Amino acid sequence: MEPPVTALSPRPRGRPPRPAAARDGTRARLVRRGIEVLTEKGFASTGIDEILRREGVPKGSFYHYFASKDDFGAAVIDGYADYFAAKLDRWLLEADRAPLDRLRDFVADARAGMARHGFRRGCLIGNLGQEMGATHDDFRRRLAAVFADWQARVAACLEAAKAAGELAPEADCDRLAAFFWIGWEGAILRAKLVRSARPVDLFADTFFAGLPRQST
Amino acid sequence: MEPPVTALSPRPRGRPPRPAAARDGTRARLVRRGIEVLTEKGFASTGIDEILRREGVPKGSFYHYFASKDDFGAAVIDGYADYFAAKLDRWLLEADRAPLDRLRDFVADARAGMARHGFRRGCLIGNLGQEMGATHDDFRRRLAAVFADWQARVAACLEAAKAAGELAPEADCDRLAAFFWIGWEGAILRAKLVRSARPVDLFADTFFAGLPRQST
Repeated sequence: MEPPVTALSPRPRGRPPRPAAARDGTRARLVRRGIEVLTEKGFASTGIDEILRREGVPKGSFYHYFASKDDFGAAVIDGYADYFAAKLDRWLLEADRAPLDRLRDFVADARAGMARHGFRRGCLIGNLGQEMGATHDDFRRRLAAVFADWQARVAACLEAAKAAGELAPEADCDRLAAFFWIGWEGAILRAKLVRSARPVDLFADTFFAGLPRQST
Repeated sequence: MEPPVTALSPRPRGRPPRPAAARDGTRARLVRRGIEVLTEKGFASTGIDEILRREGVPKGSFYHYFASKDDFGAAVIDGYADYFAAKLDRWLLEADRAPLDRLRDFVADARAGMARHGFRRGCLIGNLGQEMGATHDDFRRRLAAVFADWQARVAACLEAAKAAGELAPEADCDRLAAFFWIGWEGAILRAKLVRSARPVDLFADTFFAGLPRQST
């Protein structure tokens, strides 16, 4: 999926505007490149040197932008979370579409993005969760919070579907949204392994078919 | 989850029996320890030295047992696959239980195993799939084959449920089994992130509730 387009962390106070802007620009470029590389290779396998080299940033200047590799990882997670939340909003708040179609549109867009990259990338948050959920407690909490945020956005869309009469009044939208993200991350993992959209389609078709509908 | 108890690869031919047996014993111990450590930390973060040290095997002797770190990783995947297939069979072929209860028993056992390890370990195959699905083509294929094997075992159990009248005759057991493993791996990832059984319970409850039942 594509990198975000904006710098993410607040600019440090008290610096002259021009150098700070340049610094933030470089920092944002490193984060964008980090999203791309970490999504494909994970955190442990990614060398900071590779990121710096690919952005043409001198090797010694990393600590000008980040306190540590972990600090860089946290900035990458936050950057991806912001980018992805905006992407979800773009689809799930699209007032011209019926609520369930909005979620279908998001699925179709994400599927197309994965196909564009040959099903090699998957989801940065899922990847890092698998890799570091057990070992980095700070990252674990940060990643869990990202899923909670995405889940709330899908739950709101499902509530809109309920209000529009697409879902049964007794539908538990929070549970359904949790189920959606659990299955979605599993489907992306399998899509990467088999290099095909089949697991994503199978999951999405089954999910939508199983939603509790308004009885007519 | 627990390590397997047998050596996995065929003994090299032409060696005298006693040293070969000792060699296989050490190799099997390294693989068992590898399953434990790789399940928690992943492949890239795991140092071979740590595995050797924890088994009291001299540092220089690794290449006596494995051709490379990748060869070790492959042996660990095969060891886990064999161990887990036997575990699945133990639950899913239990003739004294109704077929769907067999699958529920497997879920309960796996859940208890995760709880015993504080939800830190997850599934080695899922973990390595996330970490290396994009970068190691040999591992990717190997991991996809493991999921295909597990899926076939669950599909057979669901076919038995259909034969016993627990599932509707039109149930597509292969699809349901694929859906089960997609969601299961997603649930384990989330359980690791939130350090709780809730995602596993939510997935399993929703999966069993959604199965197409025999209409009465």
